[in-house]
Amino acid sequence: MISELFKSMLSTKSVIRELSEKAARMAMADPAHPIEIYDYSLGNPSVPAPAAVNEKMIEILRNEDPLLVHGYSPSLGIPSVKEKIAASLNRRFGMNYRGTDIFPTSGAAGALAHAFRLVTEPGDTILTFAPYFPEYGPYIVPTGCFLKAVPPDTENFQIDFDALDEALTPDVTALLINTPNNPSGAMYSEETLVRLASFLLFKEVEFGHEIWLISDEPYREIVFDGKKAPYVSSFYPRTLSCYSFSKSLSLPGERIGYLAVNPACGYSEMLVQMCGQISRGIGHNCPSALMQLTVAETCDLTSDISVYEANMNLLYDALTDLGLEIVRPGGTFYMMPKCPEPDSNLFSLKALRYNLVLVPCDSFALPGYFRIAYCTDTAKVERSLDAFRKFIRTEY
Amino acid sequence: MISELFKSMLSTKSVIRELSEKAARMAMADPAHPIEIYDYSLGNPSVPAPAAVNEKMIEILRNEDPLLVHGYSPSLGIPSVKEKIAASLNRRFGMNYRGTDIFPTSGAAGALAHAFRLVTEPGDTILTFAPYFPEYGPYIVPTGCFLKAVPPDTENFQIDFDALDEALTPDVTALLINTPNNPSGAMYSEETLVRLASFLLFKEVEFGHEIWLISDEPYREIVFDGKKAPYVSSFYPRTLSCYSFSKSLSLPGERIGYLAVNPACGYSEMLVQMCGQISRGIGHNCPSALMQLTVAETCDLTSDISVYEANMNLLYDALTDLGLEIVRPGGTFYMMPKCPEPDSNLFSLKALRYNLVLVPCDSFALPGYFRIAYCTDTAKVERSLDAFRKFIRTEY
Repeated sequence: MISELFKSMLSTKSVIRELSEKAARMAMADPAHPIEIYDYSLGNPSVPAPAAVNEKMIEILRNEDPLLVHGYSPSLGIPSVKEKIAASLNRRFGMNYRGTDIFPTSGAAGALAHAFRLVTEPGDTILTFAPYFPEYGPYIVPTGCFLKAVPPDTENFQIDFDALDEALTPDVTALLINTPNNPSGAMYSEETLVRLASFLLFKEVEFGHEIWLISDEPYREIVFDGKKAPYVSSFYPRTLSCYSFSKSLSLPGERIGYLAVNPACGYSEMLVQMCGQISRGIGHNCPSALMQLTVAETCDLTSDISVYEANMNLLYDALTDLGLEIVRPGGTFYMMPKCPEPDSNLFSLKALRYNLVLVPCDSFALPGYFRIAYCTDTAKVERSLDAFRKFIRTEY
Repeated sequence: MISELFKSMLSTKSVIRELSEKAARMAMADPAHPIEIYDYSLGNPSVPAPAAVNEKMIEILRNEDPLLVHGYSPSLGIPSVKEKIAASLNRRFGMNYRGTDIFPTSGAAGALAHAFRLVTEPGDTILTFAPYFPEYGPYIVPTGCFLKAVPPDTENFQIDFDALDEALTPDVTALLINTPNNPSGAMYSEETLVRLASFLLFKEVEFGHEIWLISDEPYREIVFDGKKAPYVSSFYPRTLSCYSFSKSLSLPGERIGYLAVNPACGYSEMLVQMCGQISRGIGHNCPSALMQLTVAETCDLTSDISVYEANMNLLYDALTDLGLEIVRPGGTFYMMPKCPEPDSNLFSLKALRYNLVLVPCDSFALPGYFRIAYCTDTAKVERSLDAFRKFIRTEY
């Protein structure tokens, strides 16, 4: 009596992970003579956590009562931690969060798992926008909801509102957005978010039911050109902000993030309490108490994310010089050029001949494009540019 | 469009948590003159984690590459950690686990969430035995399965096999057991486990389908009288062992444990891979990388759990002297005397007059009994004995 659903999911392989494993094998094909592979497949932070993170952790472990540090945290999270996170968001984004509007989670994946269950019933449709993170599919399957993608505005990867109007049917109870975006690096402008909010408010009246905005924003702090990402929740009251410290503090393995409910929705405290109920059923409970205490003290910091901007500029300039079409990223550590041939899988295979590991965007629901995850050493990015030149000039 | 299911769950309050909050209020009713309340409500470890845990954590934070320590762990857990846990289980319980049979989780709650989803389909029945941990209900609700309880053998809180025979209908695909048990402290004997295994093997043939044994065993190391808990999985091949380091290492807030699949079932590696799929859908992913690395090095240790046995003996002797009927616990930090009156809620209310906080077992599906969680300071247990004497002698 093995679960057929989860057994069947075993056969869905991750293209990204397969490519990354292939890259590792290629590098060590002859262990005596390892070759340099330019692996742009995985979105794993390449700069270490700020020193203050480990220092704070050691300070807590050394000085605090282990029964408190390692003890059960309240099921809705540690109140002092929640208040510090709220204060940081209020200070940086002009919000009015209280500690009781914040629900600590095990990363953005944990936050999304709670958000989906909070504002949908099985059978509802959740709408997202192509291109989108392929994990959204398996995240949503066990909720009993359906995921539907709005076709992209390939001009600048903002929102194609005509396409949205067509896709937004009354069975849609939540929209899932991701800005700055994986894989495109595009960041929604204030104009886009204002228009989205008014569009949703209008549709709520038309449909006679609420529509929630689930905002997946782990790249919120990784923004280029001295800009700041517009804070999604400040545009629309029914916003659930799903945040992770994985990228900003380079802590993906510690599984720490939060769900922030906009108090303007009118019943944010009840929703956070409901998160406590959802947690019981999905075996989540609270994230590590030590990590909650640590991020409370370091939530205004970031790793040295300037590396990502340097890498982006190097790659953007070199690839546009080679004639590739790219919408210049506003943030993240991704960019998504258009392939110079229609078959992005074939393009990716050819790239391997030049020691370049590039992810075709078919699994992001956008065939014909490829993703570069440039969270890597800048010197290595520089060395890869010749490989790109040889590849594009030889093959196209 | 708020989830009706999780909204409705808000109204189910935890008696344990309410009593514990009442105890805190009683203690501070007059802040100038706090009174001593004997709070036996919460099952929170009262002895700190072994010093080696914090030392190991600090050593890792100081000496290892932060990109590795805080980086994504593989979705099925860190291989070296899994191997060390398997080796520890093999050494201590004569098992044959490989690293690939172990799936690190965020505590036993996380392990149970995966176990339920692994071996059931929505609509199946999961059978457990009264008395049982009240959280099992909300843990199971969102899986779409039904939880049914077999009435207890109140003689010694082993298994009433006649009652089990009646309850085990073909819609049952998994049994959930918890030994040593919360709330009774009873530990299943080898004889009970042998009989249970042969009973299940027989029923599998009769029903023509597998029946899985989900073993919730966070108290496995807290065993009295110099004994060792029989290792459930060694008796039955289709066993999923759900373990937490919360109690043995006093780390409940760090949310670290594992699911161990008995390789004798024949496809344990596939089941662990399926856990990776289940994780995606419930937002769990891996537990903290740092905690995985830490327990790998400390999984053979325990906190100073001898305190719990000292407390148990003090309470058992004093309460049996007062004429209360108690099945002497084999382990845990709980015991479950029979109330001297039929209404255990009334009994618990009367106890409050004597500054004793005792949990009625109605929410554990066993009215007429109460639970004492004696994870507290031994000197305080000693001081509480007079309150027990006054209470029982005055009221009964």
